[in-house]
Amino acid sequence: MKQSKLLIQTLRETPRDADVVSQQLMMRAGMIQKVAAGIYSYLPLAYRSIRKFEEIVREELAKDGCQELLMPAVLPAELWQESGRWKFYGDELLRFCDRKAKAEVAERRAKGEKPDEREFYNFCLGPTHEEVITDIVRRNVRSYKQLPMNLFQIQTKFRDERRPRFGLMRGREFTMKDAYSFHVDDACADREYWAMFNAYKRIFSRLGVKFRPVEADSGAIGGSFTHEFHVLAGSGEDAILSCDACDYTSNIEKTEAPALPAGDHGAAFELKRDHFCTPGIVGQVEQVAAMKDAEHDGMPIAQTSKFFLYRATFADGTTKLVGAVLRGDHEINPVKVKNHVGAAEMELMPLDEAEAFTGAKTGFMGPVGLKDVAILVDRSLEGAVNLTCGANRSDYHHFGLSPARDLPGCTFTDLRMAAEHDTCTRCGKGHYQAFRGIEVGQVFKLGLKYSTSMSCTFLDEQGKENPMVMGCYGIGITRTVAAAVEQNYDTDGIIWPWPIAPYQVHIVCLDPASPEVSGVASQVEKDLEGAGFEVLHDDREGLSPGAKFKDADLLGFPLRLTVGAKGLKDGIVELRDRRTKEVVKLKPEAAVAEVSAARDRIMQALETAGGR
Amino acid sequence: MKQSKLLIQTLRETPRDADVVSQQLMMRAGMIQKVAAGIYSYLPLAYRSIRKFEEIVREELAKDGCQELLMPAVLPAELWQESGRWKFYGDELLRFCDRKAKAEVAERRAKGEKPDEREFYNFCLGPTHEEVITDIVRRNVRSYKQLPMNLFQIQTKFRDERRPRFGLMRGREFTMKDAYSFHVDDACADREYWAMFNAYKRIFSRLGVKFRPVEADSGAIGGSFTHEFHVLAGSGEDAILSCDACDYTSNIEKTEAPALPAGDHGAAFELKRDHFCTPGIVGQVEQVAAMKDAEHDGMPIAQTSKFFLYRATFADGTTKLVGAVLRGDHEINPVKVKNHVGAAEMELMPLDEAEAFTGAKTGFMGPVGLKDVAILVDRSLEGAVNLTCGANRSDYHHFGLSPARDLPGCTFTDLRMAAEHDTCTRCGKGHYQAFRGIEVGQVFKLGLKYSTSMSCTFLDEQGKENPMVMGCYGIGITRTVAAAVEQNYDTDGIIWPWPIAPYQVHIVCLDPASPEVSGVASQVEKDLEGAGFEVLHDDREGLSPGAKFKDADLLGFPLRLTVGAKGLKDGIVELRDRRTKEVVKLKPEAAVAEVSAARDRIMQALETAGGR
Repeated sequence: MKQSKLLIQTLRETPRDADVVSQQLMMRAGMIQKVAAGIYSYLPLAYRSIRKFEEIVREELAKDGCQELLMPAVLPAELWQESGRWKFYGDELLRFCDRKAKAEVAERRAKGEKPDEREFYNFCLGPTHEEVITDIVRRNVRSYKQLPMNLFQIQTKFRDERRPRFGLMRGREFTMKDAYSFHVDDACADREYWAMFNAYKRIFSRLGVKFRPVEADSGAIGGSFTHEFHVLAGSGEDAILSCDACDYTSNIEKTEAPALPAGDHGAAFELKRDHFCTPGIVGQVEQVAAMKDAEHDGMPIAQTSKFFLYRATFADGTTKLVGAVLRGDHEINPVKVKNHVGAAEMELMPLDEAEAFTGAKTGFMGPVGLKDVAILVDRSLEGAVNLTCGANRSDYHHFGLSPARDLPGCTFTDLRMAAEHDTCTRCGKGHYQAFRGIEVGQVFKLGLKYSTSMSCTFLDEQGKENPMVMGCYGIGITRTVAAAVEQNYDTDGIIWPWPIAPYQVHIVCLDPASPEVSGVASQVEKDLEGAGFEVLHDDREGLSPGAKFKDADLLGFPLRLTVGAKGLKDGIVELRDRRTKEVVKLKPEAAVAEVSAARDRIMQALETAGGR
Repeated sequence: MKQSKLLIQTLRETPRDADVVSQQLMMRAGMIQKVAAGIYSYLPLAYRSIRKFEEIVREELAKDGCQELLMPAVLPAELWQESGRWKFYGDELLRFCDRKAKAEVAERRAKGEKPDEREFYNFCLGPTHEEVITDIVRRNVRSYKQLPMNLFQIQTKFRDERRPRFGLMRGREFTMKDAYSFHVDDACADREYWAMFNAYKRIFSRLGVKFRPVEADSGAIGGSFTHEFHVLAGSGEDAILSCDACDYTSNIEKTEAPALPAGDHGAAFELKRDHFCTPGIVGQVEQVAAMKDAEHDGMPIAQTSKFFLYRATFADGTTKLVGAVLRGDHEINPVKVKNHVGAAEMELMPLDEAEAFTGAKTGFMGPVGLKDVAILVDRSLEGAVNLTCGANRSDYHHFGLSPARDLPGCTFTDLRMAAEHDTCTRCGKGHYQAFRGIEVGQVFKLGLKYSTSMSCTFLDEQGKENPMVMGCYGIGITRTVAAAVEQNYDTDGIIWPWPIAPYQVHIVCLDPASPEVSGVASQVEKDLEGAGFEVLHDDREGLSPGAKFKDADLLGFPLRLTVGAKGLKDGIVELRDRRTKEVVKLKPEAAVAEVSAARDRIMQALETAGGR
């Protein structure tokens, strides 16, 4: 492909509204173009990468017998009403009226009514397709003999994000691979779960990026268990902890924190109510730890406690107040609190309400004496004595809290955010290492949620009707390509992993006006393409070598092959590795051999560096 | 692939709401499933065909240097306002509010206002992408050196049809290949037009269907010229005339009709006003021709005339009345009338208005004496004399109309619908043959329409700014697959053309419970797959041979290979050609050789039968 004819416009400056590296570099490299907030066109170079990744996904899923189909993007409200999600899905679900519903609205309007169009919405753009696939399967599958079945599609999705940002990382329109599996029982669904887990490992390994499968919180979606797949990148939104000795890797929201020893705070004394009067402390544990009395000149932070008051809402609409007590130097993990009580939603009690409820300003609330509040205590405080805690009286702290004694009916459990260097709870030997990750895929055991609400059943060997057990498996296709860039770049531009590079070799012809030089460049292009390599040939006239090299670095194909009059005087051209910047001089005739060798080296390095 | 695990449910009965063959057969074969009116899921078998066709399209377009990209499905109103189409595109354009616009509506509502959501619509689902591609090109292309450029995408489109029907043939959501080209001048745009014309011929030839490129009316889209590509099928919505001697093939809307000789109706006499009084005639030419007077006992139909009164609307909003006069036995072609006057829209004058305007009931209107009406006369009446025509007085006809004399200022031109057996106007030798066709593709020279309204310009060699000349080129991907079925079926089911058959070979194992028989079937499956064939293996238990054969015929893969205990006693299996029903007996070990030979025969036959 001749670059002079390629749809591409590189930019020297970083576009103002680009706020992450992948967005900045892909916009500068002329790969994506913004059409509206969170909505992009994928220009030819980016689309080559996207399609390559799609093919990797297809090939690996085919190995596990998954069947590809394509469901519509525009979905009728009825199916979503049947699953119950029409009501519960937030404003990310773009609902609208089709022509028929609009005509009805217009008719009402013509009669002088003032109809609210929202009440007539009868379609939406599909952000996921559980409803449609469940409808397909219940209409086409009757017998246990037809199961298990795994169906997938690669499709354009739409989620009307409140704040679309980060380019392809959190757009409104994006390409996703979504798969859904159907099974006669849990054991079979679990087997498929792990088959997909392994397929995802193959997929991201082939992509050539560093990644981790990560145990994750299954949250309110109602699934039984789940793994996220994260591309590791310093800019990642998610914190991941990974044991340095065993395989345990999890999203910090989910990571088990080890119970720490209670600490020696002396023999337990009684609870001294309102012992410290220290106005002006607003929740800084260091200030709390510095409080003094006749016997104590301050105390270890581990002797202080903190308190959080939540309102949990359950699936049946009821609510409950939940108080969480932690050591002063520990961080609360609200997901653990929410999961412990089994809430559908949970929020910190708004400050004004909390102050009215406890009778104390922020910083002086505590667990002692609260009525109708379920008290949870982090398990690192099991056996702890002589702690301070808020007195539920402004400016005052109690002293001498022994949770097991002073909080009757409290529950000790894991509430805190695990931290780097904590001992691994899984193997008990290693320690957690911290990473940042970009979630690009998820495997999820759905269980019976949709098959029950939508009556997706099969007849078993005894002719008895049972709901199918389901799993679902997603990969953000366009998000993954952006994540690969977030992981692979330097100050000069992108460094594409070979398997999804738009082109593998960038021939830079320094003297395109010279028939001799451009002749050699074109011959090398032909040779490489003949050997199966994908080549972009920068044949543009009127540009300095510097400008061409800058563009080549920005586009970031794995290999650059420079052809210039100067080198050709000595009969040589130069092959440069984008990542290592190593340069090899070679004769033009040796291009295929040298490029093949370089490819083998690069692929070898990718395999070594890949995920596990 | 084992059929027992395939997502498929065949139906014996034709679904009630399926109104064309392709829809009936694809629904019965478990290939598509309706999700809402005009919205379908493509199940695994159909999606295999669709993807095969997509790859054919990609490969052929790549040969012409077209670059693939992907534009969004959800498009902002601004771009459509810029081109002017936001206002003029009908209700097929699905407009809606995104989250932000909805929030604004809700805010107004909260203030007690009764906002009309229509006024806040700020996005739409793209039915075509001229605006987006023009925006991309104007932002990325500056110099004549970067032109020409041809960009395409294969994408899900949405058109909110008033009456979606015919399954995949006229759905609301469908897959389309749309390409757009950009040029420095007309000559270059014309070269690309013919390059795409030839690419389309290659594409539909490779698909293996009988088709015709057809000259078509470019209508109000404003293009300069256009060809449609039609798959020939008896059920086609379009009538096509094709010369049996030369290449001239055109949509009947566009086909030039030869001027026929005026006919000998004697020496011209004067116009006898209100000569015939024949109440009850309502436009039946046979009745008109049967009218008598003292000298005439009826007359040839060719001596009668018919009259049509239209209101034409022009791009600037002005209107004009147009009257068209034809020989009584000829059919009017309203497209020719509209094009002759250069109208943007044209409609028959509503009957009540026409009666008030002419003063006569229907059947008695005529061209004589009308004021402020542009009179067009079909060129077969040039030189005609002594015709009858409506008298613009109820129950009366004039007699003796000589158009050139009695209709001063009238224009003779081609107004009639050409007919089968008419002499070809292009070569003057052959005669028209009639076909029915399904339009599946179109090449279209757009000219400057979008580049002017959206300022898509380039700098020429002199540094002067010029608008780019554009072309656009569409193929309805899913429609083509359905059209291939409309052309290729029999009473038993579909007969897939080899190049897009979901699978090429259907192994039907008659005795799957027998380890020996199923062993042979699986070995043959493995052998054929090893040789690169795509095989579906019907391994389902508990079905009679008849039921399995019925399903195989319905699914319609090109070759069926039957493996049964009975045949294996003699060491043979049977290979059957779905189209010819010819059966070959062979040893299982010879399957690859026989299937290869059959494939060669089938492909040969397709090439011979293909389009031109």
